[in-house]
Amino acid sequence: MLNIQLLLTGNELMSGDIVDSNSAMIAQSLTKIGLAVKRKVAVSDDINDLIEEINAISIKADVLIVNGGLGPTVDDLTAEALAQVADVQITQHPEALTHITQWCERRNFKLNAPNLKQTMLPDGCDIVPNHLGSAVGFHLRLNNCDIYCTPGVPKELQLMLDKELIPSIESLLPEKSHHHVSRYQVFGIGESSLQKLVDEKIENWPESVELGFRASMPLLELKLTSKSAQAKAEKAECYEQLKALLGDHIVAQIDEVPLTFGDHLQALLREQGKKITFAESCTGGMLASAMTRVAGSSAVFDGSFVSYANHQKQAMLGVNEQTLVQYGAVSEQTVQAMAQGALVKTGADIVVAVSGIAGPDGGSDDKPVGTVWLAWGTSQSIQTVCLHIPANRYYFQHYVTAIGLDLARRLLLVSEETPRYITERQKS
Amino acid sequence: MLNIQLLLTGNELMSGDIVDSNSAMIAQSLTKIGLAVKRKVAVSDDINDLIEEINAISIKADVLIVNGGLGPTVDDLTAEALAQVADVQITQHPEALTHITQWCERRNFKLNAPNLKQTMLPDGCDIVPNHLGSAVGFHLRLNNCDIYCTPGVPKELQLMLDKELIPSIESLLPEKSHHHVSRYQVFGIGESSLQKLVDEKIENWPESVELGFRASMPLLELKLTSKSAQAKAEKAECYEQLKALLGDHIVAQIDEVPLTFGDHLQALLREQGKKITFAESCTGGMLASAMTRVAGSSAVFDGSFVSYANHQKQAMLGVNEQTLVQYGAVSEQTVQAMAQGALVKTGADIVVAVSGIAGPDGGSDDKPVGTVWLAWGTSQSIQTVCLHIPANRYYFQHYVTAIGLDLARRLLLVSEETPRYITERQKS
Repeated sequence: MLNIQLLLTGNELMSGDIVDSNSAMIAQSLTKIGLAVKRKVAVSDDINDLIEEINAISIKADVLIVNGGLGPTVDDLTAEALAQVADVQITQHPEALTHITQWCERRNFKLNAPNLKQTMLPDGCDIVPNHLGSAVGFHLRLNNCDIYCTPGVPKELQLMLDKELIPSIESLLPEKSHHHVSRYQVFGIGESSLQKLVDEKIENWPESVELGFRASMPLLELKLTSKSAQAKAEKAECYEQLKALLGDHIVAQIDEVPLTFGDHLQALLREQGKKITFAESCTGGMLASAMTRVAGSSAVFDGSFVSYANHQKQAMLGVNEQTLVQYGAVSEQTVQAMAQGALVKTGADIVVAVSGIAGPDGGSDDKPVGTVWLAWGTSQSIQTVCLHIPANRYYFQHYVTAIGLDLARRLLLVSEETPRYITERQKS
Repeated sequence: MLNIQLLLTGNELMSGDIVDSNSAMIAQSLTKIGLAVKRKVAVSDDINDLIEEINAISIKADVLIVNGGLGPTVDDLTAEALAQVADVQITQHPEALTHITQWCERRNFKLNAPNLKQTMLPDGCDIVPNHLGSAVGFHLRLNNCDIYCTPGVPKELQLMLDKELIPSIESLLPEKSHHHVSRYQVFGIGESSLQKLVDEKIENWPESVELGFRASMPLLELKLTSKSAQAKAEKAECYEQLKALLGDHIVAQIDEVPLTFGDHLQALLREQGKKITFAESCTGGMLASAMTRVAGSSAVFDGSFVSYANHQKQAMLGVNEQTLVQYGAVSEQTVQAMAQGALVKTGADIVVAVSGIAGPDGGSDDKPVGTVWLAWGTSQSIQTVCLHIPANRYYFQHYVTAIGLDLARRLLLVSEETPRYITERQKS
């Protein structure tokens, strides 16, 4: 097993102003190739501390991943510290210069002195490409340790891990690992309920297949890992048993990069040549945004309404004043009229409408905070449901958005199952 | 300054299954008494690693806070490791036994063997009360270092910090610290440009005042820290100089918790008793969502339009077909008509309309990906601008949303400055 250690640098990390999620990201990425982090150390942006740690770790570890300190400001000291430990000069690296020049050109930025600082790297190092940001990563072998210096910006780090670092570290391994991972996205059942269901319903789960999770909102990632070449068949069997248990709660199989509900829904709508629209009250634009974040959404989405106030539900969607007065904004009648209005106004094939009480204010005994009516369907048939999701505003809006998208997905699949979020949260 | 170090233990921490938020919590608590964490180390639940780290840190540090490993399972090795480093026995601590006995009684639990393991502590240690959980903390002085062992459960840790650890560490200080931090949110200028501006334009920046940043999208956090009682006045002067340089690019002063653009804009709209609406094409609902994520948004927002396709710009907002045919969807004429339409349809006081090419497809030589027209104003006067923001879709949508909200903010402030994102990115 390789001895892999992390060194994290950053004043904001030490002050607690930011929570370190990068080291978890690195650890998870290493897990995919069957490796683990043995030790991690974090220090401030202090040149002497960095020198001391890099030196001490490089003597003991096989791999050192340094994260942070690649930026353009005087705080960013990683290159300087590594050069001092390696006893080499800092000079301008031609590949780094090319990278930053092109990076600035694409953005119409003028190359400035802080940018140029990012091209000054320890002599003898190799570049590790950064596919997003201005700061390249770099690699140097020292004291029999492979040292990789990586950016602190999470999106840049993730891409560098996936495309560069993990393949590079994998090549250090004596033989290819037999670990094989299949990933699925699941919606509507939590990690502990799912584990309990598996424990209760699936007998003789094989030891050679590991069931793992990566919690992410709203789609839970489920991971099946086979630990030997033979176990691949057993893994396929495990999946069949899971599929029988979970049905359409399994949204899709995915590669390494998680997909969003917007991705899944756009794919389904494209397959069927259909368009979707929304009439949103309590989600306030989040449904529309979930669709339009995905490139290519114009093929399946023409537009939608954020009808937040009652009079806008009338003006935008043609909901009757009488309906609003008699039943209220959060009611089956209103949400059904919103859905119908949006279909008529946009000419879309399917619709999701939501009206609820996101809180923290606006609740009543009858309709407490967390109450939400959803309507979804086509011009032929619109279904409705009332759920109760007692949670803070942030979680409520995100979860209701996910449920709205999932109901549209199930409609397109012509799924006859009742999802668990309805059986568990339906308001009688 | 005390040399304070953290040692975190836990397999789930090293595997990346959980993100370490405890060390940020500890750092933030120490900040309140003017102290900082110099270094943190994390290792798995391995007795040899723990012994090695505790020993090495205790020799160098004044204070060592060990977090995790106090639980009832065989993985929980902190007491054992500390005893070995101190070369003392592990015995049952009477105060710990009293605590766990009472803890179980209150819950009608029967005291079991795993519970009793939590009473076995290194000889000579003092108890640090846990006001919530079953595992007491403990303290031992070794190699001139005060070692505190604390629980991994965040709620228990927070209470132990507030009530026990921080007062105890504060008592080690020769005198009260004079660190004082002021935080501001800034939009429209990046960290490196800002640093460069300060370097070039502000002469004689006092050494007693530290300028720091916390990069976060879209609002950059700027931190001024004065390091002595006298420096508080100097800090105020530094702020005045920054304000003169940055003008309305400084959005607000904040407390510890960062605010969103939605928060700032809602506050301004409330002050002025005004309502806002949006006509969104390329941001696809993100502007509306940014407003409605904030509780209380119904006071300043009645509704808005996501008019993604051309025919929806006509149907929803009354844009002329002729305008769309002649000038295109991404044009001054269209975005102005969208803005006017949204004002008329909703009766709002101010409006922001956007139409652009988020990409990756849809660009042309004349209007490349990243081109965006914005219109903002009131029924009296609508301004427009065309910017070029060549970036990936994710960044483009978020940045255009932030710019749209910032233009509304500047409109409400009656600001006469031209923001840097216009001078730098305006398309001629």
